Amino acid sequence: MLPDRTFFNRLAEAAKAETLPRFRSGLDVTNKLSSGFDPVTEGDKAAEAAIRKLIEERFPDHGILGEEHGNVGLDRDYVWVIDPIDGTRAFISGVPVWGTLIGLQKNGRAIMGMIEQPFTGERYFADQNGSIYSGPEGERRLKTRDCGMLSKAILFTTSPHLFTGFEMERYREIESQVRLFRYGTDCYAYALLAAGHVDLVIENGLKPYDVGGIIPVIENAGGIITTWEGGRPENGGSIIAAGSRAVYDQALAILQR
Amino acid sequence: MLPDRTFFNRLAEAAKAETLPRFRSGLDVTNKLSSGFDPVTEGDKAAEAAIRKLIEERFPDHGILGEEHGNVGLDRDYVWVIDPIDGTRAFISGVPVWGTLIGLQKNGRAIMGMIEQPFTGERYFADQNGSIYSGPEGERRLKTRDCGMLSKAILFTTSPHLFTGFEMERYREIESQVRLFRYGTDCYAYALLAAGHVDLVIENGLKPYDVGGIIPVIENAGGIITTWEGGRPENGGSIIAAGSRAVYDQALAILQR
Repeated sequence: MLPDRTFFNRLAEAAKAETLPRFRSGLDVTNKLSSGFDPVTEGDKAAEAAIRKLIEERFPDHGILGEEHGNVGLDRDYVWVIDPIDGTRAFISGVPVWGTLIGLQKNGRAIMGMIEQPFTGERYFADQNGSIYSGPEGERRLKTRDCGMLSKAILFTTSPHLFTGFEMERYREIESQVRLFRYGTDCYAYALLAAGHVDLVIENGLKPYDVGGIIPVIENAGGIITTWEGGRPENGGSIIAAGSRAVYDQALAILQR
Repeated sequence: MLPDRTFFNRLAEAAKAETLPRFRSGLDVTNKLSSGFDPVTEGDKAAEAAIRKLIEERFPDHGILGEEHGNVGLDRDYVWVIDPIDGTRAFISGVPVWGTLIGLQKNGRAIMGMIEQPFTGERYFADQNGSIYSGPEGERRLKTRDCGMLSKAILFTTSPHLFTGFEMERYREIESQVRLFRYGTDCYAYALLAAGHVDLVIENGLKPYDVGGIIPVIENAGGIITTWEGGRPENGGSIIAAGSRAVYDQALAILQR
């Protein structure tokens, strides 16, 4: 049996109970050396442990790939992919663009996923029925947008410092062609892409748990997410996500020069 | 008679009624040419008009400096400084780090101010009694932090593309010395500095309405905000804000090389 949205909501609530009280707790990693207290690492570990406990109880035959507590049964049919706090730098500095990412893969392919931002109360969930947003504005179906071409696109990336050498040249070329670009968005960029507010996200150096929860949210909202080589994104690495085929094709052509 | 916090709250609510319904309305400036509908410009104009109406009713002898609807009576003792939507790029792209900035100056000196983020429900207010936060975590007094030295500081700026030539060299020097830096924060960076989550904000090219509402929030929380020359920040330009004297002095020494 597959999990349902209710179960994902339970996972998100369990994680939130560990992350949100530590967000803006005023004792960040600056204090780590002097006090031994490190809220982001604590929140990361505690949230992942809470999620794993619920999964292990309900789906003991599923595998788990987690950022903090290692991997179990990655060769099983169903594998959960967990990043309890994606965007630790945002978390540390008080900006609510970090998120809890939870994904489920079947035979290596992402089929369900969730992006949770506890401070703003936003939750982006996807299964085979589509992608759904719930948050301060209520609940609605997620749908990416098609701005038509790269020159009309809004581009997000976490930081231009992600790129070096040829990668930087190609990234800058895309940046020079878009209508607007912004930095500092972490997993929130993918959520906004799924919701049709932005058109393109380009990053690299991503881990499987950085994308596991994101892939279904984008794909089931009508978007495209692949590696820069155009392959499946489940293993992370260099990632491009776009709201439409037209923008994706134009950006990919530059990335592959 | 001076306005009180209740009056500022009324201004913020009036602005919110114009901005929030247009945020993520799905019809951004991409649609401007085809439909004539431009939510961020509409929101900007309508929010400022709503704020000005309340001020003109209650304080008809005060001057007003506004981004959208021009200036009135800038030579009067009291002058309001309004930026209805600071961070239009954030607004356009769905990221809740834009804000409504409302400040009051007496003889050219900022004495009361507010940073309002309607989507997250956060409000940062300052008068002679101090700076106060209200938001999802409740209400509390704002206090900047002292991380002790530049090498322990978290630095925010809206974009490194703000800087050119010598300015860029100096900015990069500071960036290379801090513990962590982030981009893409607009007025939210100053709010987080006042709240003690980050230590340093460096920007340039700011207008008076970009800083009018911010200055009292930072100063009355114990922080420092000046031009890069160390002068009063009310006229904008190149701005540095810091949570403590130690970090301010170290960063300013680099900016003034």
